[in-house]
Amino acid sequence: MKTTISKVSQYVDQEVTIGVWLTNKRSSGKIQFLQLRDGTGFIQGVLVKKEVSEEAWEAAKHLTQESSFYVKGLVRKDDRAPSGFELTVTDLNIIQYATDYPITPKEHGTEFLMDHRHLWLRSSRQHAILRIRNEIIRATYEFFNNHDFIKIDPPILTGSSAEGSTDLFHTEYFDRDAYLSQSGQLYMEAAAMAFGKVFSFGPTFRAEKSKTRRHLIEFWMIEPEMAFTDHEESLVIQENYVSFLVQSVLKNCPSDLKTLGRDLSKLENIKAPFPRITYDDAIKLLKDKGFNDIEWGEDFGAPHETAIAESFDLPVFVTNYPTTIKAFYMKPQPGREEVVLCADLLAPEGYGEIIGGSQRIDDLELLKKRYEEHNLTDPAYKWYLELRQFGSVPHSGFGLGLERTVAWVCGIEHIRETSPFPRLLNRIYP
Amino acid sequence: MKTTISKVSQYVDQEVTIGVWLTNKRSSGKIQFLQLRDGTGFIQGVLVKKEVSEEAWEAAKHLTQESSFYVKGLVRKDDRAPSGFELTVTDLNIIQYATDYPITPKEHGTEFLMDHRHLWLRSSRQHAILRIRNEIIRATYEFFNNHDFIKIDPPILTGSSAEGSTDLFHTEYFDRDAYLSQSGQLYMEAAAMAFGKVFSFGPTFRAEKSKTRRHLIEFWMIEPEMAFTDHEESLVIQENYVSFLVQSVLKNCPSDLKTLGRDLSKLENIKAPFPRITYDDAIKLLKDKGFNDIEWGEDFGAPHETAIAESFDLPVFVTNYPTTIKAFYMKPQPGREEVVLCADLLAPEGYGEIIGGSQRIDDLELLKKRYEEHNLTDPAYKWYLELRQFGSVPHSGFGLGLERTVAWVCGIEHIRETSPFPRLLNRIYP
Ligand SMILES: [Mg+2]
Ligand SMILES: [Mg+2]
Repeated sequence: MKTTISKVSQYVDQEVTIGVWLTNKRSSGKIQFLQLRDGTGFIQGVLVKKEVSEEAWEAAKHLTQESSFYVKGLVRKDDRAPSGFELTVTDLNIIQYATDYPITPKEHGTEFLMDHRHLWLRSSRQHAILRIRNEIIRATYEFFNNHDFIKIDPPILTGSSAEGSTDLFHTEYFDRDAYLSQSGQLYMEAAAMAFGKVFSFGPTFRAEKSKTRRHLIEFWMIEPEMAFTDHEESLVIQENYVSFLVQSVLKNCPSDLKTLGRDLSKLENIKAPFPRITYDDAIKLLKDKGFNDIEWGEDFGAPHETAIAESFDLPVFVTNYPTTIKAFYMKPQPGREEVVLCADLLAPEGYGEIIGGSQRIDDLELLKKRYEEHNLTDPAYKWYLELRQFGSVPHSGFGLGLERTVAWVCGIEHIRETSPFPRLLNRIYP
Repeated sequence: MKTTISKVSQYVDQEVTIGVWLTNKRSSGKIQFLQLRDGTGFIQGVLVKKEVSEEAWEAAKHLTQESSFYVKGLVRKDDRAPSGFELTVTDLNIIQYATDYPITPKEHGTEFLMDHRHLWLRSSRQHAILRIRNEIIRATYEFFNNHDFIKIDPPILTGSSAEGSTDLFHTEYFDRDAYLSQSGQLYMEAAAMAFGKVFSFGPTFRAEKSKTRRHLIEFWMIEPEMAFTDHEESLVIQENYVSFLVQSVLKNCPSDLKTLGRDLSKLENIKAPFPRITYDDAIKLLKDKGFNDIEWGEDFGAPHETAIAESFDLPVFVTNYPTTIKAFYMKPQPGREEVVLCADLLAPEGYGEIIGGSQRIDDLELLKKRYEEHNLTDPAYKWYLELRQFGSVPHSGFGLGLERTVAWVCGIEHIRETSPFPRLLNRIYP
């Protein structure tokens, strides 16, 4: 029976054939222990000299790291094995002996590993991170489909920038200029007026010359947008969504979390509702903690976000930021125009902002005023104003950064490992 | 109870409140009939003068197309209504009276509608198409998750082109050149060696100066790639996947298909296995049909694809194309090197190619030879060669174009309606 390592539990004491690569091996003279992987999992194959053909024994002896072959064997239940199973090898059929595989079990520098990202993906740690990324993607679709959101794909190529930003990649679009999208939000607002509740999930781009452990040049974002929904209702969706992601990973990726050595107690705790703190109180909290480098009206830096997050076990919503430091489309708090109906969700353990969200301005005159204040004279924005002219309704939305969320759930240092082929300031290869 | 039109069946004879827009209305003096939409569906609201307040009656009288309001009413089962339900309106609460909504029930030209795409999305036909697109996206994740594929996101920004193509969008990536991806396939091959079975689903870009009803500049593609999988096994996955998409739309979008007037008998029939015809036999078939403008070794144009597809009720795989007209990475047929182990899947009814797939070259020396033949000297490709050096295995994959598939399933003329904000040769607005 041709199968995969992930399915051996269905074939206990039966003979199976699996296409595999060798990750490591050791030998005791009469027994060879082969560490095998097939992409779906890892298993040990045991070859006993007197029980296999001489050809099979010799073939196994010459196996090198990352050699590819079909292995035939009997599936044995083995409680000592990490996977719970072992393979008693009966035969093997070599596809290719690999020579000089560059990534050996010894330590390698990060740049070396990044240069070999196409191979580094095969390592157990990278494999675990990207399987958790896959689960977060899968759970995102499950969550938004179950909540009756329609997936809408906003364009990547646009004639203007979403927030008047300058960190844009430019390209020539036939006879005119185009830019790579930094956010699909404005388009999602149009879509929400047509479909009620919508979400996007696609790549976004920031040509930012920053080199931190939290930034990628190309990253994926989920951007839900909801008509007839105020900011409070949006916060409830956000905390339920993030809880669902974390609980889904706990449920469906236990062995990947184990591979990463993740402290599960930090994740098991992550259940809605999440605590909230206003920007005002966050400033006070920072002052109490001895920060003298921030005043009301200024945006937080990474150390501030970390200090705020440290005061809570759960992700925390920081709400009602000053109007002047937030995007032009955010709705002012009624009766207190100097702050907006918004929140950033800060992940625990110093992972920083994973969600930014707000209620949007629905009043045409106020939006026009903001256009003027922000010099948004580009006619490419005309259509966005029209959303407030033809049946404007209260609406809210948010954006979650996939890679930052993966980094937090995995508990890893640097965001570059959360992307299969990360794009960084100095890296566009492989 | 605040709810949505899609859920009124849960509240028969109960009072609900729904945020809605007016699409149309008529009045008989003592009764007003309001056609309502909320993004989740369409329903008729009935206002009887003597049963509502004078304020509510007057507010309703002034309603214009696309005015937004909260409507309160009793849900009535009504078998004559298209949705099966009607709303006996008890009150309404105006959010905004819209004036001069540009898209009226009369006919508009395509360019006018495309200029107002942000509003056109609200029309019942566009709404139906994009809900079917959403279902095809949802079903894609369901299919590949159920078949143990891992979602891997290949990069959009790359230092080279996938197939030596020239139709690439260029951008400056800090101090070097980058291009927008036309296909993630090469990266997916690296991922398949790490994860076994993988799929991508993201935007791709072709800076092609062609203006046909089948081409978009920016479109989404699903690209699965499978290790230890030959071309025959890949074809089985492909036909099962396409069948699953069509049957999912039939099951979950009956009212959307009805809105589009789709001939359901053409879709109900779409079940695996699909017929196959070799390129050799397809050439003969075309000759028999009187085509004199094509010879063995030449690629098909749209009229040829349509003529081939017309000979079958189901989508048809055209297999084993000449090596010279296909991509450099396709594996030659053993014993007949002038053709490759590939197939294009042609949709019925003249919708053309929706899938292209092949087994990939796994032999290092042959791939090197192809590199030379295609002048692929760019060091940006080095990593791709290494996949054949370190544990190369037989592997196959394919790419399905989302928008062409949506066009076919919806039975619509032009691909531009399948994208929320289509990018065309002359269009990057809105
Ligand atoms: Mg922030
Ligand atoms: Mg073709």
